[in-house]
Amino acid sequence: MAPVRKLKVGCAGLGRMGARHALNFQNRTPRADLVAAFTPDPKEVEWAATELPGVKVYTDYDEMLKHPGLEAVVVASVTTAHAEQAIKAINADKHVLCEKPLSTSAEISQSVVDAAQKKPKLKVMCGFSRRFDASYRNAFEQADAGAIGRPSVFRSQTCDKLDPSGFFVAYAEFSGGIFVDCNIHDIDLALWYFGQDSVVKSVVAMGITAVQPGLRKHKDVDNGVGIVEFWGGKIAYFYGSRMMAAGQHDMTEIIGTEGKLTVNANPMGSLVEMHESNGVRREIPPDYYGRFEHAFVTEANDFTAACLDNTKLPFKLSGAVQAVKIGCALQESLNSGQKICFDETGRRIETAKL
Amino acid sequence: MAPVRKLKVGCAGLGRMGARHALNFQNRTPRADLVAAFTPDPKEVEWAATELPGVKVYTDYDEMLKHPGLEAVVVASVTTAHAEQAIKAINADKHVLCEKPLSTSAEISQSVVDAAQKKPKLKVMCGFSRRFDASYRNAFEQADAGAIGRPSVFRSQTCDKLDPSGFFVAYAEFSGGIFVDCNIHDIDLALWYFGQDSVVKSVVAMGITAVQPGLRKHKDVDNGVGIVEFWGGKIAYFYGSRMMAAGQHDMTEIIGTEGKLTVNANPMGSLVEMHESNGVRREIPPDYYGRFEHAFVTEANDFTAACLDNTKLPFKLSGAVQAVKIGCALQESLNSGQKICFDETGRRIETAKL
Amino acid sequence: MAPVRKLKVGCAGLGRMGARHALNFQNRTPRADLVAAFTPDPKEVEWAATELPGVKVYTDYDEMLKHPGLEAVVVASVTTAHAEQAIKAINADKHVLCEKPLSTSAEISQSVVDAAQKKPKLKVMCGFSRRFDASYRNAFEQADAGAIGRPSVFRSQTCDKLDPSGFFVAYAEFSGGIFVDCNIHDIDLALWYFGQDSVVKSVVAMGITAVQPGLRKHKDVDNGVGIVEFWGGKIAYFYGSRMMAAGQHDMTEIIGTEGKLTVNANPMGSLVEMHESNGVRREIPPDYYGRFEHAFVTEANDFTAACLDNTKLPFKLSGAVQAVKIGCALQESLNSGQKICFDETGRRIETAKL
Amino acid sequence: MAPVRKLKVGCAGLGRMGARHALNFQNRTPRADLVAAFTPDPKEVEWAATELPGVKVYTDYDEMLKHPGLEAVVVASVTTAHAEQAIKAINADKHVLCEKPLSTSAEISQSVVDAAQKKPKLKVMCGFSRRFDASYRNAFEQADAGAIGRPSVFRSQTCDKLDPSGFFVAYAEFSGGIFVDCNIHDIDLALWYFGQDSVVKSVVAMGITAVQPGLRKHKDVDNGVGIVEFWGGKIAYFYGSRMMAAGQHDMTEIIGTEGKLTVNANPMGSLVEMHESNGVRREIPPDYYGRFEHAFVTEANDFTAACLDNTKLPFKLSGAVQAVKIGCALQESLNSGQKICFDETGRRIETAKL
Repeated sequence: MAPVRKLKVGCAGLGRMGARHALNFQNRTPRADLVAAFTPDPKEVEWAATELPGVKVYTDYDEMLKHPGLEAVVVASVTTAHAEQAIKAINADKHVLCEKPLSTSAEISQSVVDAAQKKPKLKVMCGFSRRFDASYRNAFEQADAGAIGRPSVFRSQTCDKLDPSGFFVAYAEFSGGIFVDCNIHDIDLALWYFGQDSVVKSVVAMGITAVQPGLRKHKDVDNGVGIVEFWGGKIAYFYGSRMMAAGQHDMTEIIGTEGKLTVNANPMGSLVEMHESNGVRREIPPDYYGRFEHAFVTEANDFTAACLDNTKLPFKLSGAVQAVKIGCALQESLNSGQKICFDETGRRIETAKL
Repeated sequence: MAPVRKLKVGCAGLGRMGARHALNFQNRTPRADLVAAFTPDPKEVEWAATELPGVKVYTDYDEMLKHPGLEAVVVASVTTAHAEQAIKAINADKHVLCEKPLSTSAEISQSVVDAAQKKPKLKVMCGFSRRFDASYRNAFEQADAGAIGRPSVFRSQTCDKLDPSGFFVAYAEFSGGIFVDCNIHDIDLALWYFGQDSVVKSVVAMGITAVQPGLRKHKDVDNGVGIVEFWGGKIAYFYGSRMMAAGQHDMTEIIGTEGKLTVNANPMGSLVEMHESNGVRREIPPDYYGRFEHAFVTEANDFTAACLDNTKLPFKLSGAVQAVKIGCALQESLNSGQKICFDETGRRIETAKL
Repeated sequence: MAPVRKLKVGCAGLGRMGARHALNFQNRTPRADLVAAFTPDPKEVEWAATELPGVKVYTDYDEMLKHPGLEAVVVASVTTAHAEQAIKAINADKHVLCEKPLSTSAEISQSVVDAAQKKPKLKVMCGFSRRFDASYRNAFEQADAGAIGRPSVFRSQTCDKLDPSGFFVAYAEFSGGIFVDCNIHDIDLALWYFGQDSVVKSVVAMGITAVQPGLRKHKDVDNGVGIVEFWGGKIAYFYGSRMMAAGQHDMTEIIGTEGKLTVNANPMGSLVEMHESNGVRREIPPDYYGRFEHAFVTEANDFTAACLDNTKLPFKLSGAVQAVKIGCALQESLNSGQKICFDETGRRIETAKL
Repeated sequence: MAPVRKLKVGCAGLGRMGARHALNFQNRTPRADLVAAFTPDPKEVEWAATELPGVKVYTDYDEMLKHPGLEAVVVASVTTAHAEQAIKAINADKHVLCEKPLSTSAEISQSVVDAAQKKPKLKVMCGFSRRFDASYRNAFEQADAGAIGRPSVFRSQTCDKLDPSGFFVAYAEFSGGIFVDCNIHDIDLALWYFGQDSVVKSVVAMGITAVQPGLRKHKDVDNGVGIVEFWGGKIAYFYGSRMMAAGQHDMTEIIGTEGKLTVNANPMGSLVEMHESNGVRREIPPDYYGRFEHAFVTEANDFTAACLDNTKLPFKLSGAVQAVKIGCALQESLNSGQKICFDETGRRIETAKL
């Protein structure tokens, strides 16, 4: 009855998503021990004192990296800090699970990849949570087994519940915009289902501010539609919205030459239906965590297993750069009104002007 | 370009269902001509004057039967008049489409069958509208082709929208009770899917008056559940209700040894879904006509074709007696608290007492 | 009992859709009499002899227009003949129901509108069948009543079942391309839900030939995605496909500032579900007529009523020109790779070049 | 950073369900420590050596009860051992989570309740897993808040996937029969939604052996239907089956005077739908654990919290006796053909004979 070896994990950031990661690693990841956390926010320090018993909380990130025995870091701070914290952790020889996006800039995202490539023994992963969702995995296995022929058209949307508080306007200042913040997931999924080596050929996007005109000052919209063409005859199209009345509705269609797979075409919060005087009703999840909670738990467990067992991560870090690059191009097209083209190596064709 | 031969039809009764039949034969049955109608009700006479142009309206049923050239009669009057009017029409050599049930008494129902058997050239059919519904037909074809193995368990319900007006209490005086009025359809379906020669072995029912206590004076309930066992190892169970908040929900499951078919497990009034702040909602049909309108049109057309072309009706009249017999037994069991048993010839075993 | 006055109708074209229109006007439109039909095809003449008894069949369209008493013409011939036949009928003082599109050219479409405007007493309608579909009407009534706030984003697709026979390639020679042939319906719906006076601002489209490379010779694709921006902050996006494995899937989402309506998000051919060893399955309609059959019947009846009662048609003919204009622009963008822009009067901005 | 206090748990039985409980307490119940396990089966001992590192495995149940510091026992052995092991644990001052049913006999079940009542400080719970399912809880909260008026009719089914191996025949020897083994869950749910103090008035059941005739030798069936009437005008009806082709389908309807709630009316194994050449398909869970896995995890966590915090369990142990009593009465009625009646105190009325 030798004691079980557990991965010693630290969590950078204890905000909305950081707190969830911390709790997941502490309580729902049997092979991990959350030993340390970092937050500069006194309220979060206080929260950790009661909710993360036994965890050492640091207000200095560099100090946390020196926590005795620390093996892995979850980077779940504000987006603008992702890349720097990830690189520091890598340089300190820690495995890293970094929340998406690595950065709102493709170049900075690439710098994380570069750092990681110098430490091939480390596991460095971008937290594309949908990759760990049971339904997306099921769909991928089917597509991969040829069930729908050759995947050719991909439709995916990330649609948040309407939030009239103005949150999304403030948030947009640093989010990178709707295509980088929301549709990055959908882009990553497209790369997964179409093949990680898919090369973007052209990108175009349009958008409106139907409920949050204040978004325009951050060059953002509350509803955006984009099309991404890939070399080799494949098309993906995306919809991002901050305006869903009923709740979160993230869904995906993978259309192949012989069939189609849909994931979450019919959102539902539970298996309950209510028969009321005006019809039959079901509730849907209020936010992405309501939809993907179990995926985050699986992510924590799979990452932990890969670190402990030195097995391959389920996907490459470099894909995260591709996703950011496409997301940024969509966001740029949205604002410039231009279609953006790329050559067969994925290099931008600068001469194209509308 | 010889004129098309059309079936000359008269409609007995122009109440709720009679008016629908009249309009269907007039407007939606290309091979039929509605030439006559009977109603003793002055308001319905007036209605017919504007809504049934060209149709001769009688206030005496026997006179209508003498209408020149009349070939067929739709009996859609009050249930208590069904059998007498059907028999008179048969005796006057008219084809008959009689609304269900033939009667609330198995004996009287049998008398219609007896009359019809003396006129084998006539088409005499009981209006089990679900037999003409596209979905029920589709399910039957699949079951008949062996798609679910041997149909063994049958669940079916007829559930009306809650009507707080007291209509159902008044209606119950002559309806024969919920199992005869509502579940007669479900019983007929069981006989269809299990085989028309299925022999009832035992019957038991229970019920409550949850919203209409006044029903008890007519020995009826607003929610009834019954089980019908057939010789040969088959079971059907039924639910009838007058208490659905959302609308009509008639549905059926046919469970076989290798699969299951459901019909209308998810009721819907249209293909529209509404995403609202409290979830996703769909409306459902408010009444059985909203669900079965097209089945009634098909019924009119199929009946007309059988009369004109002298082809076989889709099902035998005698099944209607079986259905009434089972419905009455369920209603009796509901009120007596007794299980009622039958021998292998379908004859009641009188000695069984609770 | 005065005889009912009926509209005397002639049908131009007895091919796939023409035959359906002819039968609908003959059998399912109580207030209409199909009196004449035109087809140059001997097989269709033969078909009409047995299936359209009592109908005079012409092999010369101009002769049919002279049929005694003829009041209205349904134009359901090949697309390339629509405009000419419609104009001839208008000039001969006949009401016209013309199948969509009026033409694959916006200019020619406009010529039909011009002809109609000279005869304001005539009812001239383009057969946008979805306008008569009960679900689309229900959704429109809700949107119109403000149920979803201000409609802002519109997604709609017309997706045909995969047909490996090569039919779609041959058909593409004259169809105008996938955006004109298929998505014309979706464009018309966008104009309906956004308001008929919506002015297009920009248009962009991309597409692939995943299963029918032969389409490229007709400048067409088997999967196309397009975005249409309207002045005033509204966006529509469309998907057209000839590659659906399971059957026809035409669906629409209308997304407003306070809610969303979906039409046919979950296609189904009947109310039957099959529980089989590999899961639960439902069939979906094999083609658009399986989905919209009742809409075509309603269309025939509503058109007939407007002619007989001299009431307003449900929508203006000029919208058909708008729809064709947008469809053609999408098709052009697909082939040129350019985004196409329009000024606030809807006039094309010619200087825009990619 | 004081160490967190955790509940020291032992697991009796490491078979199918025992192993799941053991893993859940070890890995997915942060406040519990699985410290001991008991199994007489050498293969399970071996399994535990690798899968339950750090857990002391006993082959003698009484020895396990003496494990130092043991505070709680999960009884997940064969049904016939439940009561004895539960009572022993209670007598040894351990909290107990006992798999359902306590026993296949109401009398023996009562003996567990009696033992527990002598130790009021202990938490003793019967593992009605559905009580911990998020959907059932959501439905209960709504019903409890009055959303459907007065719950009046209850329909619930437990339907297992067809297993042609003969497993169910062997299993039936000790299971107590389909109503005790499967529908015990549904009965417990009826008592939950109708109120724990509901008193049974009458019970009747019928059944068949459609696919496993060997079940008759154990007085069991593969498809059973039962009705349970409660004093006060409430009815529940149940269906149990071992014959579902597609997978597990456990579902429930709670029908109130003003609305209806359904739980799992549309079973699904994931959020994926497959569009294939013969329609749209979804998979469903293969077994009850596929449906209720998360409920078992919640059960483990809630039980642990109640033990550690000395808070009330979510439901009383005595209900388990009621459920077994009703289940046994249904099973008896199935075999005797008799309806069984109870007076208003729930005492059986012995004179009733069919």
